[in-house]
Amino acid sequence: MTREVYIAVVGPSAGTPAELAIGEAVGRGVAEAGGVLVCGGMGGVMESAAGGCADAGGRSVGILPGDSRLDANPYLTVAVATGMGEARNAIVVRTADVVIAVRGEFGTLSEIALGLKIGKPVVCIGTWEFGKEGESVDAIVRATDPRDAVAQALRLAGR
Amino acid sequence: MTREVYIAVVGPSAGTPAELAIGEAVGRGVAEAGGVLVCGGMGGVMESAAGGCADAGGRSVGILPGDSRLDANPYLTVAVATGMGEARNAIVVRTADVVIAVRGEFGTLSEIALGLKIGKPVVCIGTWEFGKEGESVDAIVRATDPRDAVAQALRLAGR
Amino acid sequence: MTREVYIAVVGPSAGTPAELAIGEAVGRGVAEAGGVLVCGGMGGVMESAAGGCADAGGRSVGILPGDSRLDANPYLTVAVATGMGEARNAIVVRTADVVIAVRGEFGTLSEIALGLKIGKPVVCIGTWEFGKEGESVDAIVRATDPRDAVAQALRLAGR
Amino acid sequence: MTREVYIAVVGPSAGTPAELAIGEAVGRGVAEAGGVLVCGGMGGVMESAAGGCADAGGRSVGILPGDSRLDANPYLTVAVATGMGEARNAIVVRTADVVIAVRGEFGTLSEIALGLKIGKPVVCIGTWEFGKEGESVDAIVRATDPRDAVAQALRLAGR
Repeated sequence: MTREVYIAVVGPSAGTPAELAIGEAVGRGVAEAGGVLVCGGMGGVMESAAGGCADAGGRSVGILPGDSRLDANPYLTVAVATGMGEARNAIVVRTADVVIAVRGEFGTLSEIALGLKIGKPVVCIGTWEFGKEGESVDAIVRATDPRDAVAQALRLAGR
Repeated sequence: MTREVYIAVVGPSAGTPAELAIGEAVGRGVAEAGGVLVCGGMGGVMESAAGGCADAGGRSVGILPGDSRLDANPYLTVAVATGMGEARNAIVVRTADVVIAVRGEFGTLSEIALGLKIGKPVVCIGTWEFGKEGESVDAIVRATDPRDAVAQALRLAGR
Repeated sequence: MTREVYIAVVGPSAGTPAELAIGEAVGRGVAEAGGVLVCGGMGGVMESAAGGCADAGGRSVGILPGDSRLDANPYLTVAVATGMGEARNAIVVRTADVVIAVRGEFGTLSEIALGLKIGKPVVCIGTWEFGKEGESVDAIVRATDPRDAVAQALRLAGR
Repeated sequence: MTREVYIAVVGPSAGTPAELAIGEAVGRGVAEAGGVLVCGGMGGVMESAAGGCADAGGRSVGILPGDSRLDANPYLTVAVATGMGEARNAIVVRTADVVIAVRGEFGTLSEIALGLKIGKPVVCIGTWEFGKEGESVDAIVRATDPRDAVAQALRLAGR
């Protein structure tokens, strides 16, 4: 079963309705593509993505920062309690073949950066832009909508 | 789904046929009890337990020491690549409500000790014995066979 | 001794001569301020910062990604081998009261983001710029030179 | 400086006066041998060992389970806040060339087991005994007193 593509969906733990809807659609798309959803296991976009994945009959794993599985959102196939705080962000991206970022705050930015550092492709919908000395660094693929994001992720993962 | 009982099965990565058979029966028992199997994701007893769990239609998660999900055994519902070496043993026991140890070597002993340290009950089949100054410390529950081990684990987890 | 200020210096593992000189001056400044230098323990800016710190009689700790202390640069007071890969970036910023970023690549960006996520102030010299939807997010303090960076870091750490 | 021997001293966070005295003497011995003391950074034997090391002019590093360096004992040269709970035990033994266990509880047993798992020699003074099926497993070296423990540790580390 490890031959299936694993797609991390990262984003804010407290999203706007628009962000939550994007997360849900991405989670649904991951499931429809036969992928396994990886996320941080908490609320916001993590929860809406897991919900969309479950609705479409897909599998998901939530990798939690805290000590207790009881903090997990209720839509995960499996929850993992790392007890390692933000260091779990490194596990989220390492477990995935490709990362989809949905907007997000500094935690999401750390996951984008950790993903790029260890060679995981990153697709985004409206997330962080970054650069140096006034020049943009175009290291991540910009998607126009959830369907496009999943399609790009599959392509970058070689599927 | 986090209301389900999570049972870690820990044991040697290269087991004897007898140990592998015990692991398989324990994994099957976890699934039949409606539990989620947590293991280290590699071979030996981890693999036979995941196989028994899959045969009985259960869910399992393998928490791998290495950087790559491709090292996982093929019977897991979901594999997590921690890239953290033996530190992942702490995640295995933290994710579980209760630990079942099947014989095992020093890695298994570390999981028993980490589990006891953070307050997780430990059931065992023929695993390590330990004590101090010639006195045995009876901190773990000895089970007679796989069926008994799962029953004791459920009891200790309050199910 | 834990009352002393701990300042993380993060930057590229293979720096240009200009970046290495900045790192060395920052490390020297940390030591002259009576601070403890925290870094990733490897080469490049991590090494030049540790070297500057050692030259000025200061203390430093290198928190390594790999399994072996032998990969550490030779200027550290103490080296810690985490065996956790990039997850060690979370330990670097958690150990520090304030972070100084010297240019850097994606690893450095992850340390900036992790630091901001957990509430550590970040000062930078010529490092990443980032924002959303065309708007810059000014979450980090821009310093003009190493002396200014250390002064700002001390101020942000409440010293 | 990484050529120096690093010796982990592990033991209870709340020791008896006799245990604390042993810890202090071991810490002093590590320093007198020119070694670097590695410990978990908290109280009990960790604190007395760090105190003995400091008294003899040695260097020490405390690798803390929690989020804050302020929990560290006051005798450390450097404190590292991992925020990873008991998973930090794996970092303690990985950072060391050899481990000395002074009695201790389940946390200490986990450090002994993790050390043996990754190939670090373990010396003990009155700590855990363990075995299988009624047979003792003699994997650790029993020392008679602190002086002997440090001498054995140096020998096992190839010094």
